[in-house]
Amino acid sequence: MERIGLAVIGAGYWGPNLVRNAQATPGLRLEYLCDLDVSRARQVLGDYSTVRASASLDEVLADDAVGAVAIATPAGTHLKVALAALEAGKHVLVEKPLAANLAEGRRLVEAAESRGLVLMLDHTYCYTPAVRRLRELVRGGELGDIQYLDSVRINLGLVQPDVDVLWDLAPHDLSVFGAILPDGVEPLEVAAHGSDPIGAGRACVAHLTIRLTGGAMAHVHVNWLSPTKIRTMVIGGSSRTVVWDDLNPSQRLSIYDRGVDRRADLGAGEREQAIISYRVGDMVAPALTEREALRSVMAEFAGSIAEGRRPLTDGRSGLRVLALLEAASESLATGGTFVPVKTEVAA
Amino acid sequence: MERIGLAVIGAGYWGPNLVRNAQATPGLRLEYLCDLDVSRARQVLGDYSTVRASASLDEVLADDAVGAVAIATPAGTHLKVALAALEAGKHVLVEKPLAANLAEGRRLVEAAESRGLVLMLDHTYCYTPAVRRLRELVRGGELGDIQYLDSVRINLGLVQPDVDVLWDLAPHDLSVFGAILPDGVEPLEVAAHGSDPIGAGRACVAHLTIRLTGGAMAHVHVNWLSPTKIRTMVIGGSSRTVVWDDLNPSQRLSIYDRGVDRRADLGAGEREQAIISYRVGDMVAPALTEREALRSVMAEFAGSIAEGRRPLTDGRSGLRVLALLEAASESLATGGTFVPVKTEVAA
Amino acid sequence: MERIGLAVIGAGYWGPNLVRNAQATPGLRLEYLCDLDVSRARQVLGDYSTVRASASLDEVLADDAVGAVAIATPAGTHLKVALAALEAGKHVLVEKPLAANLAEGRRLVEAAESRGLVLMLDHTYCYTPAVRRLRELVRGGELGDIQYLDSVRINLGLVQPDVDVLWDLAPHDLSVFGAILPDGVEPLEVAAHGSDPIGAGRACVAHLTIRLTGGAMAHVHVNWLSPTKIRTMVIGGSSRTVVWDDLNPSQRLSIYDRGVDRRADLGAGEREQAIISYRVGDMVAPALTEREALRSVMAEFAGSIAEGRRPLTDGRSGLRVLALLEAASESLATGGTFVPVKTEVAA
Amino acid sequence: MERIGLAVIGAGYWGPNLVRNAQATPGLRLEYLCDLDVSRARQVLGDYSTVRASASLDEVLADDAVGAVAIATPAGTHLKVALAALEAGKHVLVEKPLAANLAEGRRLVEAAESRGLVLMLDHTYCYTPAVRRLRELVRGGELGDIQYLDSVRINLGLVQPDVDVLWDLAPHDLSVFGAILPDGVEPLEVAAHGSDPIGAGRACVAHLTIRLTGGAMAHVHVNWLSPTKIRTMVIGGSSRTVVWDDLNPSQRLSIYDRGVDRRADLGAGEREQAIISYRVGDMVAPALTEREALRSVMAEFAGSIAEGRRPLTDGRSGLRVLALLEAASESLATGGTFVPVKTEVAA
Repeated sequence: MERIGLAVIGAGYWGPNLVRNAQATPGLRLEYLCDLDVSRARQVLGDYSTVRASASLDEVLADDAVGAVAIATPAGTHLKVALAALEAGKHVLVEKPLAANLAEGRRLVEAAESRGLVLMLDHTYCYTPAVRRLRELVRGGELGDIQYLDSVRINLGLVQPDVDVLWDLAPHDLSVFGAILPDGVEPLEVAAHGSDPIGAGRACVAHLTIRLTGGAMAHVHVNWLSPTKIRTMVIGGSSRTVVWDDLNPSQRLSIYDRGVDRRADLGAGEREQAIISYRVGDMVAPALTEREALRSVMAEFAGSIAEGRRPLTDGRSGLRVLALLEAASESLATGGTFVPVKTEVAA
Repeated sequence: MERIGLAVIGAGYWGPNLVRNAQATPGLRLEYLCDLDVSRARQVLGDYSTVRASASLDEVLADDAVGAVAIATPAGTHLKVALAALEAGKHVLVEKPLAANLAEGRRLVEAAESRGLVLMLDHTYCYTPAVRRLRELVRGGELGDIQYLDSVRINLGLVQPDVDVLWDLAPHDLSVFGAILPDGVEPLEVAAHGSDPIGAGRACVAHLTIRLTGGAMAHVHVNWLSPTKIRTMVIGGSSRTVVWDDLNPSQRLSIYDRGVDRRADLGAGEREQAIISYRVGDMVAPALTEREALRSVMAEFAGSIAEGRRPLTDGRSGLRVLALLEAASESLATGGTFVPVKTEVAA
Repeated sequence: MERIGLAVIGAGYWGPNLVRNAQATPGLRLEYLCDLDVSRARQVLGDYSTVRASASLDEVLADDAVGAVAIATPAGTHLKVALAALEAGKHVLVEKPLAANLAEGRRLVEAAESRGLVLMLDHTYCYTPAVRRLRELVRGGELGDIQYLDSVRINLGLVQPDVDVLWDLAPHDLSVFGAILPDGVEPLEVAAHGSDPIGAGRACVAHLTIRLTGGAMAHVHVNWLSPTKIRTMVIGGSSRTVVWDDLNPSQRLSIYDRGVDRRADLGAGEREQAIISYRVGDMVAPALTEREALRSVMAEFAGSIAEGRRPLTDGRSGLRVLALLEAASESLATGGTFVPVKTEVAA
Repeated sequence: MERIGLAVIGAGYWGPNLVRNAQATPGLRLEYLCDLDVSRARQVLGDYSTVRASASLDEVLADDAVGAVAIATPAGTHLKVALAALEAGKHVLVEKPLAANLAEGRRLVEAAESRGLVLMLDHTYCYTPAVRRLRELVRGGELGDIQYLDSVRINLGLVQPDVDVLWDLAPHDLSVFGAILPDGVEPLEVAAHGSDPIGAGRACVAHLTIRLTGGAMAHVHVNWLSPTKIRTMVIGGSSRTVVWDDLNPSQRLSIYDRGVDRRADLGAGEREQAIISYRVGDMVAPALTEREALRSVMAEFAGSIAEGRRPLTDGRSGLRVLALLEAASESLATGGTFVPVKTEVAA
């Protein structure tokens, strides 16, 4: 396989992880680490690297050895950086969220699609062995009809200077919802409540409620202020319910054959109570192969370029997340009422 | 101390616990267990008991040996049963919620207060060693200003025939909030989202968001459908944050000296980021004496009668819970908007 | 079914549990609670009981209404009390250990067997749903050949005045080993190491190593001084390994399809490494019905009397535990060498 | 600071970690990765490295740019490789155990000391923030007199071709004991029991009991066959007891103010029971800074060379571990009797 020349843009928090994993990906050849602060790029590369550091995006994009870029700069810069890359004919892998808002995101999707370039979101969690298995379980019907989803992502996190806790953390949960829900189950409307108890100027604690096609409800709790760290998602189905605890490496997924059933109504004489029944069956924790998710992200990026196909988390998956975030922000600003999700933009 | 003659009304789910604990309380003398189904009452008492079973509330209330009743019948019957008891001059301990609605609850409070009788709520959790310590921590100022509260109470629970999951489970959380929050921190408005994914005819999953005086937000997640059982409450303060995990008997309370601080603004030249700082200090899990909470409930009931004083969880604490539940139900019915809490009724 | 009249002897730590469970057992009719300190017996019975308190064992044994006794007195008194009961023609349920030593235990077994009376050990753990399932798993062959057992029973426990930590705690583990191991897998020899770091005059921390028929090794760690409480048993088999965590009510048993296999030797050219393989399969946590074990103990006692059959934990199971404890004590006294277990006495 | 030229010897399981951490250590300049299989070395270095791969130890040792070597080859080769390095005037960091036996270990210590070269053991755990704090707690007297130590290190591990589970895993526990125990508390004798239930040709499960100066007992349980992973050490003291759970990143250390006290004898009339008392106080989990231990190992190696001082885990700490392992192997071979530890060799 021809190796694709890659430049990583941004040497901040996430950039070093992209650099490390790109170097370990057979289909990629890392050419540059680019950062406005070139000394930061040099420090990330260290003293023993043959990879070039650059302070100039223009230089990088002008280099024919570079066929693709991976962007790990602040969300506010995604439009400018990614658009320049696409216009220079480079395939793009971009950190979540795709852009600072839905309109900007749509411009990027259009720019990529019109040029036949890969635009891929680094929705890292979607590439974990746990979420891949969740996707199989949900879409394969093993859980039955999805009844509710509940995701908690809280810890003592960095209060971001430019985005609130919803835009910072919820993209993880929302992208996973998108990856695992069956076709036809779509978010219809969103309500959000938030608070800023430390006076940071933006919500530090938030709760998101999403109504889905078919009546199920999804809930997301994100919190920058929690002294304890929790990363749990429950997906309740009519047949089984699965709990994903990302902080329990020895048992990330637990599939419960437990639930409440409501049998068909038995007639006027029967009381309501009589037709509710409970299942308390076994729990199975499937064996999962541990593999760094970002390694799989890089492999998918290289593979989708090489094969000229859409990646699992393409630009449209990024638009769906942006549509949810925008609706959530509108709800937050208007007292928590339900706001419709503009899913058509992501169609 | 003169022992107060007690009758327990209702031999269903909770009645046996009242019977057992009443028998172990020095200030009480258990006279009757009363249930419309007297064979059920006999079965609860067993073959070795000197306590009388009765099918007649009238008989029990007419007996001068009975000075007080403990009511464990369905909420819909509380008004009738408790009012009859108060009118017969008996002190009353009643299961949560106080009554089926706020108006009925107010009638009971007025009936008790006008007669100088004790009306006490069996808000059992408020009498656990953990909540008593929480109350000291919060009201004693050890946590600083309260920034947020977050309570999760989920498990595979009995789908109730007459009430939804909010009315069934949230009274526990709301009564604890009432017991621990400092004077002057009151619930202002409530929003609720719920869903009924199994077609039970009432919400089986619900999320409650409460805005408190001073800007803090409280959240409650109750769920009858969860295969796993969680009973956790987080109380975030400006100085410390405490996590109460009621299912971890060896470490129910964990007090974290961790948090995010925002120092006073340093001037126009300083960036916002510069004034956020993080504390990552030790965690202390205080030793708590294990004691069955219902034993303390009974002792408080007996003590408040003997001393002619208000119990810790008096009728007004029950009204505050009803006011929150009614506002939540209204929000649930109207799409999740914030609904003001009628706190004045509980004043 | 005719109900068997029962007297509970001993109103100390465990007696109240026997009283409560006897009262709830349909096949039993509780007649007496007997204790040298009759006020203690009265206090246990409480103010509402029709059960008689007695200070006289003679009185109790002379009463024809009493067909059986349950003995919860110190181990040093078991010979005298149980022998008197057997000689009076009463069936006997006795707390572990059966007696203060093997010789005394044998006298009791002979006394019961010669009279055709039931002599049953209250090896409570053997009657938990978890151990019953363990027994099925092990004896049903689902785990394959048993490779090792490892039991940890540590917490801040009461330092006993008359016995060391081995005699106090290890009977639980040893009786469970006896209940679950397949016929033909017997303890051959025992080594014990212990220490008394607080100067209590007897071992407070001890480790027991047992060699079993077939080469497997069992290990027991008991400790009165641990600040944390652990009650875990691992049973490793050639096909599956099961972990029993008695303090995790939501997942007491975890059955792992994981292990190390050694395939048949492939010839001189193959390296040793090549023939070791690893299985990392799923884990299953079976649903278990929660039921108080002592309720099942009482039912088994009543059932074995009524049906004239041996109980699951008969006197001989008590002798097997005594044989192990005596060998362990001898090893402890002689520096930790392996001491043969006198299994023949229990044959 | 002048940077010391380093060669890493061995590109197997642990070598890549040494390479990565050496590159991040300011006082070191990584020159070579050396492995008999040079393609393996090249693969570890990857496509972007300026570090040289070499198949020749002689070449590496002849290079004046190399002032020190880090050896990650099998234990059986340590004598040859390390001795060659020392004879070539290089400082040596070596994986545990120091050598295949005590005699070989002593030759290495003598070779290093006679030449004034640093010989350091990579006892990685001794450099974790948790063990550093343990060392302060124990040696600083905060726990009081040490009463017992108990270490469990079990998981589904690689069955080694050349060493048994004791030699493979116990060096971790034994080196930590050495690092934290106060001066003057030394291992006196060791007993070991082991079993090989899968027919691997060496012990796969083992229990080690160590008697220490002053009467305390230490116990180590190592196991290659466990489906679950446990890495816990309990250090019981007369004042406090600390539990180190290395797999709980959010609470690695828990310091319990709990224990059993035995007060001074009160006279003939007092019963033994009367003078035992129990403390059940709070638990404190100290905040620990997360830092990769191997980074600290490298910094200590560089620092001890630069400053011409003994490292924290010098060759003699390696000898102490070897003396314990040899005594344990002798006990294992002779049925589990206590075998004296040749501590004088490590003096």
